[in-house]
Amino acid sequence: MSQTESSPLYAAIDLGSNSFHMLVVRHIDGSIQTMAKIKRKVRLAAGLDEHNALSPEAMQRGWDCLSLFAERLQDIPAANIRIVGTATLRTATNVDVFLEKANQILGHRIEVISGDEEAGTIYKGVAHTSGGMGRRLVVDIGGASTELVIGQGFDAEALTSLKMGCVTWLEQYFKDRQLNRQNFDNAIAAAKDTLAPILEQYKTIGWNTCVGASGTVQALQEIMLAQGMDEVITLAKLKRLQKQAMMTVHLEELEIEGLTLERALVFPSGLSILIAVFELLDIDSMTLAGGALREGMVYEMMAEMRQDDIRARTINSVQTRYQIDKAYADQVADLAKTFYQQCGEESWLPEAQALMLLDSVTKLHEIGLTIDFKKGGEHSAYLLQNLDLPGYTRAQKHLLAELARRYREQLTSLPEQHAVSAQSAQRLLRLLRLAVLLSHRRNSDLLPAFELAASGDTLTLTIARNWLDNNPLTNAELEIEANRQSDMGWPLVIEARD
Amino acid sequence: MSQTESSPLYAAIDLGSNSFHMLVVRHIDGSIQTMAKIKRKVRLAAGLDEHNALSPEAMQRGWDCLSLFAERLQDIPAANIRIVGTATLRTATNVDVFLEKANQILGHRIEVISGDEEAGTIYKGVAHTSGGMGRRLVVDIGGASTELVIGQGFDAEALTSLKMGCVTWLEQYFKDRQLNRQNFDNAIAAAKDTLAPILEQYKTIGWNTCVGASGTVQALQEIMLAQGMDEVITLAKLKRLQKQAMMTVHLEELEIEGLTLERALVFPSGLSILIAVFELLDIDSMTLAGGALREGMVYEMMAEMRQDDIRARTINSVQTRYQIDKAYADQVADLAKTFYQQCGEESWLPEAQALMLLDSVTKLHEIGLTIDFKKGGEHSAYLLQNLDLPGYTRAQKHLLAELARRYREQLTSLPEQHAVSAQSAQRLLRLLRLAVLLSHRRNSDLLPAFELAASGDTLTLTIARNWLDNNPLTNAELEIEANRQSDMGWPLVIEARD
Repeated sequence: MSQTESSPLYAAIDLGSNSFHMLVVRHIDGSIQTMAKIKRKVRLAAGLDEHNALSPEAMQRGWDCLSLFAERLQDIPAANIRIVGTATLRTATNVDVFLEKANQILGHRIEVISGDEEAGTIYKGVAHTSGGMGRRLVVDIGGASTELVIGQGFDAEALTSLKMGCVTWLEQYFKDRQLNRQNFDNAIAAAKDTLAPILEQYKTIGWNTCVGASGTVQALQEIMLAQGMDEVITLAKLKRLQKQAMMTVHLEELEIEGLTLERALVFPSGLSILIAVFELLDIDSMTLAGGALREGMVYEMMAEMRQDDIRARTINSVQTRYQIDKAYADQVADLAKTFYQQCGEESWLPEAQALMLLDSVTKLHEIGLTIDFKKGGEHSAYLLQNLDLPGYTRAQKHLLAELARRYREQLTSLPEQHAVSAQSAQRLLRLLRLAVLLSHRRNSDLLPAFELAASGDTLTLTIARNWLDNNPLTNAELEIEANRQSDMGWPLVIEARD
Repeated sequence: MSQTESSPLYAAIDLGSNSFHMLVVRHIDGSIQTMAKIKRKVRLAAGLDEHNALSPEAMQRGWDCLSLFAERLQDIPAANIRIVGTATLRTATNVDVFLEKANQILGHRIEVISGDEEAGTIYKGVAHTSGGMGRRLVVDIGGASTELVIGQGFDAEALTSLKMGCVTWLEQYFKDRQLNRQNFDNAIAAAKDTLAPILEQYKTIGWNTCVGASGTVQALQEIMLAQGMDEVITLAKLKRLQKQAMMTVHLEELEIEGLTLERALVFPSGLSILIAVFELLDIDSMTLAGGALREGMVYEMMAEMRQDDIRARTINSVQTRYQIDKAYADQVADLAKTFYQQCGEESWLPEAQALMLLDSVTKLHEIGLTIDFKKGGEHSAYLLQNLDLPGYTRAQKHLLAELARRYREQLTSLPEQHAVSAQSAQRLLRLLRLAVLLSHRRNSDLLPAFELAASGDTLTLTIARNWLDNNPLTNAELEIEANRQSDMGWPLVIEARD
């Protein structure tokens, strides 16, 4: 346990075109724990003149911010600090003037990274925080650049950084601060022109899933959730938001439910770029990544975090950090998987992710015991809802939490969720509860021979009569469970076999 | 971390006069984690006839319950199982008949322990779960016996087990199930007669604090909390509850806010015994212990848990389990202690427990980071409120949670709490926030020279101007904090010293 005492801090600083960010983390048992976050809106890109020179005022804003960051770097080992500059610093003709003083203030060297390096690091940040197999397309719309990457696992196959961002597009296409169709049309058309050169290459490589990173996509998702939509971003939803925006005339007066004041100014420009990306690349749906540039920088400094199956890494880390009984968790997971197979696999639980979710919840459901036995399910739900779980989307976390809340005792109906269908959620819950109930003795040698058969929503669990007679507590609990599930309208029959 | 995988289970079974209980736990990094609890109301005492023989029906109820327990014992190592019988089994003339079959059902031997052994084990359970220095008097009112123990640390100095319990007193003094003054008077008088022989010895030894254990006292505390009283049990409150009870004629109809149906029948008899204890031993106040007989059995099996300072053991265990940065926690605690001294110690924070609470919250405030950085304070509050924290009372946990909720960022007023005065709670919060703010860099070498002076509610923090100039982030944060505290009506002045 010496790790706790000595676990060193790491810092990632990103001098972006709109804001400077500092992230301080430490590595705890396979997880990254955030210890501090500082952000200042420096608006560096706004300080470029027509010749791409940074104004003295913009430089001063940057230096002022860096002296704040410098103070916080004092307790972090130099080897654990990475500081990068992106699009605006790549562009600025007088970048040397800025950097000389900036390096001096920080006491550490700033690397101005190329667009490809930025794209590659963003991809690492996504790969380390997102689950899923196959090829993924990553889209990151920044202040002055947009990165598009296709990759698999930790390896990027195509990297592009385009000079187009929500700040620069704001200044070019919404300069008059009017939210009319003309401005949107121009912004979208220009974004498509900028994207055109990579279209063929990207479509040829292709992808299975699409992930969006950073502020623009995050703001979009927050708006969607605030408005009661699910978390999956689609072109239809983007168009709906564009319509909502066009109901206001002046950008300064824009108010959309779920949109923070801080993001409002760059919202229409960012939205325009995203619409162009969706239309041109013909994207069906996009989810939000758990990390991007700064997370990529942090994970690159921690080589030991590289593990192919992000979700397996997350489960293992959470089990260790919260002292979950792993052998028992595996027993419940194995049992639930057998149930899943006996019930007919995809024919009974059609979603591709169903088995993964069943596996995850069986391995994590007991996490609440770390807090207290009483209300253990409530505590499990609180933790799974609020923990950072790299590899799981927000909707998946929500479902895991609601399943774990109900893993034992009273059975209540599940709330609305967007990870799987309501019917599948209910079926996952039933398998979880049965697997937990049969595993009360934490020893798989003590399990009965059993057969679970599904016919629509009716489940029949057949167990040897002999075993039931010898295990009166489990027998009584199975009877109660059959009543509970049946009372919910989910028939469960327990049959003794001679 | 191999402990997680292999951490063995322990079981403590207690065959009480009213209920049989089974507790399954494991040992995790200096904490006892409950894995299962099973309870059956066997009403063994009610099965004793006039010659103290157990009826066949009562025996059968006991054996039926034990076959349920037996099933759950199968995955627990024999050396980690302890099963004890108490008052009714001590009394029953035909106990051998019961035990022979019972041992066979369980596959493990039941020990019928003497009254003194029971009292000693209860004392261990209290000592391992309650904080505080000096001599303590422990009172445990069971179904057929009441134990009174005086001890210090882990050592009992006087042990008594009296044949008087909430079940036997019910049958003797509330046989007609009437809640009139006569019945209460008789029950209280009889309890005083039973207590009389130990009076002189106990008063001579004396005690500093008084702790109540088990069902009767727990039920009382739940009623008091449900009715909006604080958690400290006093004679005045007991008399008030007696009056409430006497407003009902028939015991079967008794309804008191906060009283569960399960406890209602033995509530007046238990209350009578407790009133007798308070009056005869002249007790000022009593708090609820965190554990009793079963906890004593468990802790006795785990020799490694024996540590004199229960609160220090708890803090250390929680810090380890939730990967709190211990060196940093010590830094904040040291700083807060210096603040406390500079402000005038007891003259500014009069409660004896104030420094202990300040030390505890500074060492635990960051616990919420284990869940997420965002809303870290909320998560800290959730954990501190819900965790089992041996050595801390419920009111103290509540205060620690509310302080930790506000350790950084927005400052909001504290809710009502019963651990210290409202003024002291506010002062603890202010010291915590200042100590955290000055410790943002986790390195005590980077702290400034400072002086904190208190004049009533006005705090003046003096820091070298030179240091403030070199630390612009902390300087800015101190300014914001001065405004936040002053806005709450708690003046805070930051002074730069040349």
